[in-house]
Amino acid sequence: KHRVRLLISCQDQPGIVAAVSHFLHENQANIIQSDQYSTDPSGGIFFMRIEFELLEMIEPNKLEEKFKGVAQRFQMDWRFSYANHIKRMGIFVSQQDHCLLELLWHWRSGDIVADIPLVISNHPKLRDDVEALDIPFHYIPIDKTNKQAAEETQLALLKEHNVDFIVLARYMQILSPEFVVHYPNKIINIHHSFLPAFMGARPYERAYERGVKIIGATSHYVTNSLDEGPIIKQGVKEVSHKNNTNELKRIGRITERDVLADAVSLHLEDRVIVYQNKTIVF
Amino acid sequence: KHRVRLLISCQDQPGIVAAVSHFLHENQANIIQSDQYSTDPSGGIFFMRIEFELLEMIEPNKLEEKFKGVAQRFQMDWRFSYANHIKRMGIFVSQQDHCLLELLWHWRSGDIVADIPLVISNHPKLRDDVEALDIPFHYIPIDKTNKQAAEETQLALLKEHNVDFIVLARYMQILSPEFVVHYPNKIINIHHSFLPAFMGARPYERAYERGVKIIGATSHYVTNSLDEGPIIKQGVKEVSHKNNTNELKRIGRITERDVLADAVSLHLEDRVIVYQNKTIVF
Amino acid sequence: KHRVRLLISCQDQPGIVAAVSHFLHENQANIIQSDQYSTDPSGGIFFMRIEFELLEMIEPNKLEEKFKGVAQRFQMDWRFSYANHIKRMGIFVSQQDHCLLELLWHWRSGDIVADIPLVISNHPKLRDDVEALDIPFHYIPIDKTNKQAAEETQLALLKEHNVDFIVLARYMQILSPEFVVHYPNKIINIHHSFLPAFMGARPYERAYERGVKIIGATSHYVTNSLDEGPIIKQGVKEVSHKNNTNELKRIGRITERDVLADAVSLHLEDRVIVYQNKTIVF
Amino acid sequence: KHRVRLLISCQDQPGIVAAVSHFLHENQANIIQSDQYSTDPSGGIFFMRIEFELLEMIEPNKLEEKFKGVAQRFQMDWRFSYANHIKRMGIFVSQQDHCLLELLWHWRSGDIVADIPLVISNHPKLRDDVEALDIPFHYIPIDKTNKQAAEETQLALLKEHNVDFIVLARYMQILSPEFVVHYPNKIINIHHSFLPAFMGARPYERAYERGVKIIGATSHYVTNSLDEGPIIKQGVKEVSHKNNTNELKRIGRITERDVLADAVSLHLEDRVIVYQNKTIVF
Repeated sequence: KHRVRLLISCQDQPGIVAAVSHFLHENQANIIQSDQYSTDPSGGIFFMRIEFELLEMIEPNKLEEKFKGVAQRFQMDWRFSYANHIKRMGIFVSQQDHCLLELLWHWRSGDIVADIPLVISNHPKLRDDVEALDIPFHYIPIDKTNKQAAEETQLALLKEHNVDFIVLARYMQILSPEFVVHYPNKIINIHHSFLPAFMGARPYERAYERGVKIIGATSHYVTNSLDEGPIIKQGVKEVSHKNNTNELKRIGRITERDVLADAVSLHLEDRVIVYQNKTIVF
Repeated sequence: KHRVRLLISCQDQPGIVAAVSHFLHENQANIIQSDQYSTDPSGGIFFMRIEFELLEMIEPNKLEEKFKGVAQRFQMDWRFSYANHIKRMGIFVSQQDHCLLELLWHWRSGDIVADIPLVISNHPKLRDDVEALDIPFHYIPIDKTNKQAAEETQLALLKEHNVDFIVLARYMQILSPEFVVHYPNKIINIHHSFLPAFMGARPYERAYERGVKIIGATSHYVTNSLDEGPIIKQGVKEVSHKNNTNELKRIGRITERDVLADAVSLHLEDRVIVYQNKTIVF
Repeated sequence: KHRVRLLISCQDQPGIVAAVSHFLHENQANIIQSDQYSTDPSGGIFFMRIEFELLEMIEPNKLEEKFKGVAQRFQMDWRFSYANHIKRMGIFVSQQDHCLLELLWHWRSGDIVADIPLVISNHPKLRDDVEALDIPFHYIPIDKTNKQAAEETQLALLKEHNVDFIVLARYMQILSPEFVVHYPNKIINIHHSFLPAFMGARPYERAYERGVKIIGATSHYVTNSLDEGPIIKQGVKEVSHKNNTNELKRIGRITERDVLADAVSLHLEDRVIVYQNKTIVF
Repeated sequence: KHRVRLLISCQDQPGIVAAVSHFLHENQANIIQSDQYSTDPSGGIFFMRIEFELLEMIEPNKLEEKFKGVAQRFQMDWRFSYANHIKRMGIFVSQQDHCLLELLWHWRSGDIVADIPLVISNHPKLRDDVEALDIPFHYIPIDKTNKQAAEETQLALLKEHNVDFIVLARYMQILSPEFVVHYPNKIINIHHSFLPAFMGARPYERAYERGVKIIGATSHYVTNSLDEGPIIKQGVKEVSHKNNTNELKRIGRITERDVLADAVSLHLEDRVIVYQNKTIVF
């Protein structure tokens, strides 16, 4: 199928939808789904995601070339995303398996459509789970002395394998700004709390101490402000005084993996537009 | 504000969105929100809801007149709905107060934008609650002998007050086909179960007997098949073996009122399109 | 019915349940429900709530007198609560009606069993809603200059009417330590965020700015640390980028009233034991 | 740890808790958790689950021998369950992997404490997933001609491996009464609908046709009435008109696996008591 998605953001103004849909009609595109949102119809920011099918596949860059006129007229920030380009996802993991296994299960069941050229870990523990599915596993240990070198090794691998975006599937390391800059809004993290509650370390311990009655997990894009990047998806579960910290962790794992898998799916389907420090999720 | 909504359904085919958005742009309409859905992009049914603002209010029927060309071209089923026409909602109630009070609270707080020209009940019990808000309350008793006459009285009142749609806020009577025919897809009921489980009478008693661990409520449009009309909204709550039938009823009331209020809001904002026996909810 | 509840906390140690249930059996009590929890079976803190029925009502203080032996043996913190003593609930409110109306609806429907000798407000706005149910409404305006005097007036009214506990139903004033000390773990507040996220003022505005995908409400006992008292109940609802601050408030009101009503019910049924800054909720 | 659980059901009557807790105290048992429920304190059925630790492990059958006196006095239905007897779980599966993988993940992570001596399937497809964890996989094809023989082979394997209970992890075959009789209230099924809605075949197709807005899954003990056995746990997820049958299945898989894993955990911890056709879940 020649399925394509067009993502747009620009100043809201009359005629955008007419111009875009006219353009698509002219190019024999059949609109499958269309979503739009405006922060304020008078002078706010307008966001749009249109998914359409072309009668026949167009040459690379042809559609982009043709669309430039429309885009310039409305001063759009825009991109086409082609469904036949399968996105390449790099997974980073430490010792906990639940988020990794969840992604791998969705991947093998076809719910998550992506290529996974590699999994990188600072521990060797999950090698077998990864290699059992014929995915290369790279063990790159990290300690205080080698962090910069380790990140350079990681980056080289990611570039070599043309990775489009990175998923931190409970990767218990903080990425340096030098690393993050290479993948702006393309590193998806899962934080094991209902952000902005319990930012930083040991959220379940702190949730237990505070005596909350609901715990959560948050998937967000990584920025240089720890746990403060744009939120993609959140989930929660009820708990009680009976649940000690270990039980909060056990209950939380279910939410973490669900929330992360949802966020990855949304990203893969180009449903997330980042604007300032927030997401529009279509 | 000159806000208008356009609702469309037709055979899916290329060019619909382009034609509609071109029409709106030509008529100086600024699109606020737009939703569409197709049962199948190749030859399915296409549904659309566009909310837009006109620069200045147009004469009655002018927009309709102009749109006819577009509509005929695609053989659309269509209508414009004008936000400055406040819908007139008739409420039917029996003895239970929770759904009625919920609607009245949302109404007085401005969350539900409607006129309520009358409340009709087969019991006098809730008169004070209604009249305290200066809404006329009509007590029309119903028994086996007078049902037809009572419904005729109800219909006369509804017509007299130009009621647009009816909400059965736990009205414990079954409306006759002769009544329903006057308000197709315009009578909203709340059934106190998670349909299609426990259709018909005494759902909480049957839920208790079955030992379900979740109970629900369902808001749907009334058709002549009892509890089988198009579902607008459903909600659920967890229960346990500890909850006897009375407690299921108490817990259920919270869900019933929430679900009904949501369904009424969706209807008021023209977000519900009925197709065959299902709803598209934008 | 001669229904009584016994609440216990003490150092966990062997024989507590045997001693308590033996005592109750000796006194012809039929146990209806019993819950217990221990922070750690070896040397932790043990909590228990037993609800039972007496064959015939016992003289005041007789049961307490008899139980002293058991209590001393295990160095218990304990109290009996008699269901035939209907608790007296004072409600504080400002201008928003939803939490107040929720409590009043549950009260008139019999779901909340309490006496409401008075509602106190720093605004006259909700007088009619309260007086319509024959509940006295006291308008006590508060500004920077009269806060101490106002609180003294409030306290005098509360004492005069033998109020057992206070519900802050969106009362937009901070109570002074001098006030709070009179009702330790007996003032129930509803905070309009998912604590500990967004403590303090304007939580919905801040939730909107952060771009969270779920909002919440928290009911807790009031202490002298703002929004940091023991949490009784929390609730959440999903939101999206489409919801502006006003819509977050509208959506949040539903959660706030549900969470507060649940917390009040739990308190009324003596289901909440406070230990350190957390609650055990049976 | 010498942890033991005692499960009791009997006619409600005064003195049960006193007698049981006295017995445990006498035998140096430290109660960890205790739950009870009575269908009606005057003459209903009383249910109890007590989890306790013995100072030192008692000889087999010694506790049972001692308890007989108490049990006879109240005509109890009762059993002790010893945590050091790890329950042996047989898993039946067909071609879908999600419920199987979920159980295996919880098992390897230690959340589910059980021995899994075998997995039986009527398809060879999931052999590798099972054998990768060193669990024997038995492929027993079933068709119309060999059902009885296949069930006999299954039963022989189950007996040979001392299987305590069976989990049907989306096993798409109906067990015969001759099979079920061997494992009364010991076969846990997951049905892919919110029972009693959509009993029988193709629930997602029927949910789509009905246009429900919430789908669910139900875990229950298998009886000879298809999908009518005692419900252990239910879960739900919201859906919309946008979700076709395949998407309902995809969404439903998440609920199915969560609900089944919860039900299996409850069973393993002896938290489920079946009475008539319902469960008490402590």
